[in-house]
Amino acid sequence: MNTITVNASGKYDVIVGRGLIGQCAEYISKAVKSKSFAVVTDDNVDKLYGDIVVSSLENAGFRVCKFVFPHGETSKCTETLNDIYMFLCENHITRSDCLIALGGGVTGDMTGYAAATYLRGTSFIQIPTSLLAQVDSSVGGKTAIDLPCGKNLVGAFKQPELVLCDIDALSTLPREFFIDGMGEVVKYGMIKSAELFEILEKNDLDSIKDILEDIVCRCVSIKRDVVEADEFDRGERMLLNFGHTLGHSIEQYYNYTGISHGCAVAAGMAIITGLAVNRGMCSEEALKRLKSCLAKYELPEKAGPAVSELGNACLNDKKRDGGFISPVICSEVGSSAYVKMTIDEFLDFIG
Amino acid sequence: MNTITVNASGKYDVIVGRGLIGQCAEYISKAVKSKSFAVVTDDNVDKLYGDIVVSSLENAGFRVCKFVFPHGETSKCTETLNDIYMFLCENHITRSDCLIALGGGVTGDMTGYAAATYLRGTSFIQIPTSLLAQVDSSVGGKTAIDLPCGKNLVGAFKQPELVLCDIDALSTLPREFFIDGMGEVVKYGMIKSAELFEILEKNDLDSIKDILEDIVCRCVSIKRDVVEADEFDRGERMLLNFGHTLGHSIEQYYNYTGISHGCAVAAGMAIITGLAVNRGMCSEEALKRLKSCLAKYELPEKAGPAVSELGNACLNDKKRDGGFISPVICSEVGSSAYVKMTIDEFLDFIG
Repeated sequence: MNTITVNASGKYDVIVGRGLIGQCAEYISKAVKSKSFAVVTDDNVDKLYGDIVVSSLENAGFRVCKFVFPHGETSKCTETLNDIYMFLCENHITRSDCLIALGGGVTGDMTGYAAATYLRGTSFIQIPTSLLAQVDSSVGGKTAIDLPCGKNLVGAFKQPELVLCDIDALSTLPREFFIDGMGEVVKYGMIKSAELFEILEKNDLDSIKDILEDIVCRCVSIKRDVVEADEFDRGERMLLNFGHTLGHSIEQYYNYTGISHGCAVAAGMAIITGLAVNRGMCSEEALKRLKSCLAKYELPEKAGPAVSELGNACLNDKKRDGGFISPVICSEVGSSAYVKMTIDEFLDFIG
Repeated sequence: MNTITVNASGKYDVIVGRGLIGQCAEYISKAVKSKSFAVVTDDNVDKLYGDIVVSSLENAGFRVCKFVFPHGETSKCTETLNDIYMFLCENHITRSDCLIALGGGVTGDMTGYAAATYLRGTSFIQIPTSLLAQVDSSVGGKTAIDLPCGKNLVGAFKQPELVLCDIDALSTLPREFFIDGMGEVVKYGMIKSAELFEILEKNDLDSIKDILEDIVCRCVSIKRDVVEADEFDRGERMLLNFGHTLGHSIEQYYNYTGISHGCAVAAGMAIITGLAVNRGMCSEEALKRLKSCLAKYELPEKAGPAVSELGNACLNDKKRDGGFISPVICSEVGSSAYVKMTIDEFLDFIG
């Protein structure tokens, strides 16, 4: 078991290990003083872990209520959010109580946002059950929901009180969701760690499962460093968006249903790196290694729509800042920077 | 013209004076660096000041878009909020742009909340046009919308970049809205300033209009002191909720349409003070002066529902904290404290 402490506006532990979900009340009771908990989860995760979490908490003497919503990115919307608010209201959840996000990125982002805004803020805990949520979205306090016109367009910065990454949960993950998470893992290697990237190159979709605890710890540690350096996303943290500006546009093109986030980010990384190579901003070798690594983990290097078609959707990306947009470009494996461009320069860049 | 500077998580000026709306671009351009502005206002205020604000900004060379919603508390809901988000999206408002809340408390609270959450936060400016918004809701960074199960149940702390209190705007205010605002003015006297309360006692609904600049400055100064001492509402700031726990229940009882916020707060203040007198926690003299002052400004000292009926609604009040609720009680005019009670003690207290 590893504990990674994040020192942001709130200080909290990310615990990475096995068998954590069944013993969650033990860790939770050390992290918060709340007596009542509202567990938020989707129908898929509920079947696997809903009862386990509720029982653990109830056996420890806590009051627990549970909200279950239909799985999938389309649920990460204002309608589900409003249902959560009403549920919290009806169950008399107060400021001193605590929300628990049990599930993947959708659950974590939306529950965190509900916690940030319900009664102007209650505490919350992340129990990420997907690879994507464990390595990326559960750590760092970015919470959000989607709007019809774009992904994560409404949100808040709100750090959790505790993150429990149970590696055992990853073994129940359907193959496509595991692949989805690997998209973000490859991203961490590309932007910050040639060492992690080499481990990925030496493994494949099967062998990687034997070293997942190490992989998750490496990713969380990178994220911790980035978040501590720039919690509110004004500089360094923007590097985490490598592949995401185009990735979000690809997801939007498919209406958030036709492609997973990780696959969209994978394609986004490959496309932007290809463009960077054309402009002499990245080595051909790095692009080759990226594409080969993506293929190893069955991640796409391109998406349906033509790159030029994605241009306009990018202009709604929330990374846009006035007349500027700052895509992240890797010059080499493990080395990244964001490049501030005018809208015209960006549209010209993506052709 | 008076400038009151608030030093909270953000530092900003509250400017109180006459003729400010027509010259708003001058003050706004000094407060923020944004080049694009989204004005949010209701249909009533739009008719009076919408064009003036837009022209002032456009003449100064800014890009301006304007969102108008139907006036009234029922608009302060998730549906209107979503419409605002979509409007901001469609008008390509980015993180470096700025929202302007032009109107009363509903507009200020909801626009501030949109600014707190859209793209995880854009800047915003308050141009309060009602007495209630000038003396209370526009200062201090509490933003929110209502839920069907209670008032201001979803929100965020988000300080504006500037507050422009144009006293001239109060002359166009319908009589009932002026009375509404006087409810909060009486509150400030009761909780913090016997001097302000005496000024109110010496004046009436007509004569007070000649000294509104002084009245607004006094209220804003009190609020500034309280917010600086306790921005996030964990102690001192709770005093501002005098009359509000019962007041919110009264508003909810009338479905947010049958009674104004100020009138509900007035009744809430009189009821809780009456209960406090019964328990020997407040002097009879203070209750008498409060009731007489409320009558002077045509504010009610009671509301339709029986006090006991309001009890359950209070339990959904966001001031409730686990098993406790902390109503504010004034022992004398100008002197207040919050009293932490268990739910049972509270229900017993309100009978």
